[in-house]
Amino acid sequence: MTAVFQTAGTLLAGHGSFQSIAGRLAAWDNKPQRVLVVTSPSLAAAGWAKTLQNGLSVEGIASDCLTIHLKEPTAEQIEDLNRRVEREPFDAYVGVGGGSILDAVKLLSVRRTNFQPVEAMLGVGKVIREGLPTVLVPTTAGTGAEVTPNAIVTLPDQELKVGVVSDRLYPRLAVLDPELTLSLPQEATAATGMDAFTHALESYLGKKANPISDMYALESIRLISGSLVRSYEDGQSLSARSDMLYGSAFGGMALAAAGTAAIHAMAYPLGGRFGITHGTANAMLLPHVLEAQLDEVRGRLEAAAAAMRQGLSGAGEDGIPIQPGADWALEQMADWVKRLRIPQDLTAWGVKAADLPDLAEAASKVTRLMANNPKAFTVGELEQIYRRLMPAKNA
Amino acid sequence: MTAVFQTAGTLLAGHGSFQSIAGRLAAWDNKPQRVLVVTSPSLAAAGWAKTLQNGLSVEGIASDCLTIHLKEPTAEQIEDLNRRVEREPFDAYVGVGGGSILDAVKLLSVRRTNFQPVEAMLGVGKVIREGLPTVLVPTTAGTGAEVTPNAIVTLPDQELKVGVVSDRLYPRLAVLDPELTLSLPQEATAATGMDAFTHALESYLGKKANPISDMYALESIRLISGSLVRSYEDGQSLSARSDMLYGSAFGGMALAAAGTAAIHAMAYPLGGRFGITHGTANAMLLPHVLEAQLDEVRGRLEAAAAAMRQGLSGAGEDGIPIQPGADWALEQMADWVKRLRIPQDLTAWGVKAADLPDLAEAASKVTRLMANNPKAFTVGELEQIYRRLMPAKNA
Ligand SMILES: NC(=O)c1ccc[n+]([C@@H]2O[C@H](COP(=O)([O-])OP(=O)(O)OC[C@H]3O[C@@H](n4cnc5c(N)ncnc54)[C@H](O)[C@@H]3O)[C@@H](O)[C@H]2O)c1
Ligand SMILES: NC(=O)c1ccc[n+]([C@@H]2O[C@H](COP(=O)([O-])OP(=O)(O)OC[C@H]3O[C@@H](n4cnc5c(N)ncnc54)[C@H](O)[C@@H]3O)[C@@H](O)[C@H]2O)c1
Ligand SMILES: [Fe+2]
Ligand SMILES: [Fe+2]
Repeated sequence: MTAVFQTAGTLLAGHGSFQSIAGRLAAWDNKPQRVLVVTSPSLAAAGWAKTLQNGLSVEGIASDCLTIHLKEPTAEQIEDLNRRVEREPFDAYVGVGGGSILDAVKLLSVRRTNFQPVEAMLGVGKVIREGLPTVLVPTTAGTGAEVTPNAIVTLPDQELKVGVVSDRLYPRLAVLDPELTLSLPQEATAATGMDAFTHALESYLGKKANPISDMYALESIRLISGSLVRSYEDGQSLSARSDMLYGSAFGGMALAAAGTAAIHAMAYPLGGRFGITHGTANAMLLPHVLEAQLDEVRGRLEAAAAAMRQGLSGAGEDGIPIQPGADWALEQMADWVKRLRIPQDLTAWGVKAADLPDLAEAASKVTRLMANNPKAFTVGELEQIYRRLMPAKNA
Repeated sequence: MTAVFQTAGTLLAGHGSFQSIAGRLAAWDNKPQRVLVVTSPSLAAAGWAKTLQNGLSVEGIASDCLTIHLKEPTAEQIEDLNRRVEREPFDAYVGVGGGSILDAVKLLSVRRTNFQPVEAMLGVGKVIREGLPTVLVPTTAGTGAEVTPNAIVTLPDQELKVGVVSDRLYPRLAVLDPELTLSLPQEATAATGMDAFTHALESYLGKKANPISDMYALESIRLISGSLVRSYEDGQSLSARSDMLYGSAFGGMALAAAGTAAIHAMAYPLGGRFGITHGTANAMLLPHVLEAQLDEVRGRLEAAAAAMRQGLSGAGEDGIPIQPGADWALEQMADWVKRLRIPQDLTAWGVKAADLPDLAEAASKVTRLMANNPKAFTVGELEQIYRRLMPAKNA
């Protein structure tokens, strides 16, 4: 099978790397004249946008900052934002934020140069023209959006989340500076961390797994296993935050080379219809989807377990078997779900038993991801998996 | 510390991936009109250039093929080649060959758009303009040149090998198809395989090692450890050739992110002055340089040993300790040197005891690499290392 791998034009990583963004832009072949920085209120308040804009100004690059509250943007929100910025003379966009901000910047970049609305870009390879160059700085760990060809939008009228997938969405520069993730609140640390783990694991277990994605996936699994609980319990640990940030970028690279599968497909309707945060939806589904396909994934899950073990023992956790099996891996994930206080009850978001057939139907239609899943789930099986997240049936 | 990573625009890998090159070129934003394919006689004879040219023609892309015998090219050879091709209306260059061909194509690409001779590009960051887009298809495993910013030339009058290092040397497309490496003769399989291993190990032990280079380096070490002897003893094993090819590309990625060190610095004068093949020179030096700095590298070498162990046990080799140490790693490398029939005697190339001080002096001046070495060797210590490859002193 042929594997294809692409990534950010340049990946800059390490504590302090944020400070070198301005210098890097100044050294670009076409040095930008005016840059738009897009960020969210909490990060702007922490001073990151200001720091960057000062740096740009020292390099003789003008900039504006757009501070917006975005959570899992809709296609319409992107269109609105585009209308606000498309006439300004920007020649590069910089996103500093979680996956919501990064995906927005990726879409704004191609929206600016393409005369198609975002809805016309949905699906694979629909973006016609190269966009403005982008710089993506993740502040969650996270989506890995800084190194993927994807951007996800919500379509509220269709109660769906859908991806734009295009090589044109890779940034020119991705910057991994763990300091920007120190302020991430506990709940978001848990949800986004489980999302990152899910990217790595689904890529590793999926049908499109290959030697390139496997390397990234296993390293991501190792790093996240060793830092997920630490980063949750001690959010100020720069070393845990750093491992998580590398882990999420490597998870994104695995995803870029191999793609996610049923867990993500099942998470999308939970987000689109009930507004369940992406990471939380994945985390809730993770153990149950794995259990439902344990026969199909046992061998690969054992290899993943070995990487989990490496990470956990490196972090000093004890009681880990020397040759952990697939069942241990499942128990370990269930343990994370508990320790990270991931909800396990869909009714908290208003999901009713009567909604489950529709959810299962919607998930089954995310064929881009379902086709990559090790097991071909029937709609009935998908419904059973959702049902495990309904308290009455769990009892 | 800040880590910087870049790679080929797209990396295409897997058995059969060679067949999709033409289609990929046809889909480029600026579809090339006329392509130059550069390859060596043995690969042309095996039909690879013809296959590619037929594919290009189907896509409506004209092409010429330049078949040249190049072994570790001199700067002057590159200038000569450039004169032969610079006036032809090519808009992309494709290299199909070992590191010698790939480095030549990388240099021809930037030579075409820059009005500087190759000698003016020597060093780091000296290439002014973007070159023609390139496609690099390695047929050794190997230099990893398809994913590095380096191209190495020999300067015969100075008896030196020197690198051009520039972000502009990354190809637009790198293609890893193991079938092209099946025909590599035993001696070249040994030498180039040890070169690939040395890239990974030096990157891992070097001062610029970082979490990105470490991932590539350890995976490279694991893959090469499991396939080096197999690919040598059974050159027709597609699985061994495939692991070696991924291993050498990952070694190149590690090198791109962290750089090589004393072994490469010491190999260059052996190549420049005595014409010792690059991989052979590295392989001869590897165990001795490591031994001379064992105190400095012991901890990291143990981690590398764990990756070697994984690869070897995966390949069914037995008698490997469960927790192998640095000394075991050294023994294992010495064993490879024997099994791969790597020469251990510099006098076979006419090196005399009286040459050793000059060699040591020359190696010490490769400061770009020496500065990355875990131990700061004195010129006297370098001389002692070379001396271990002189039979009289070995006795
Ligand atoms: N492009 C991709 O490849 C990809 C992959 C997975 C998910 N996604 C998408 O990304 C979105 C989710 O992104 P996310 O999980 O990163 O969450 P998010 O961007 O929605 O952020 C979650 C919350 O945390 C806040 N926040 C972010 N960083 C912070 C920091 N350092 N300090 C304080 N607060 C901070 C945000 O303002 C927000 O309120 C979803 O739309 C999802 O579908 C994209
Ligand atoms: N750019 C980099 O990052 C980098 C890294 C390391 C080394 N190098 C340089 O690369 C050069 C060495 O390259 P190499 O080690 O790949 O060897 P090479 O390209 O010199 O090839 C060695 C021999 O093998 C033949 N050959 C290659 N592939 C074959 C195949 N599949 N079947 C049959 N014959 C084949 C060649 O024609 C040649 O005779 C040196 O100049 C070295 O300094 C570059
Ligand atoms: Fe996700
Ligand atoms: Fe080398």
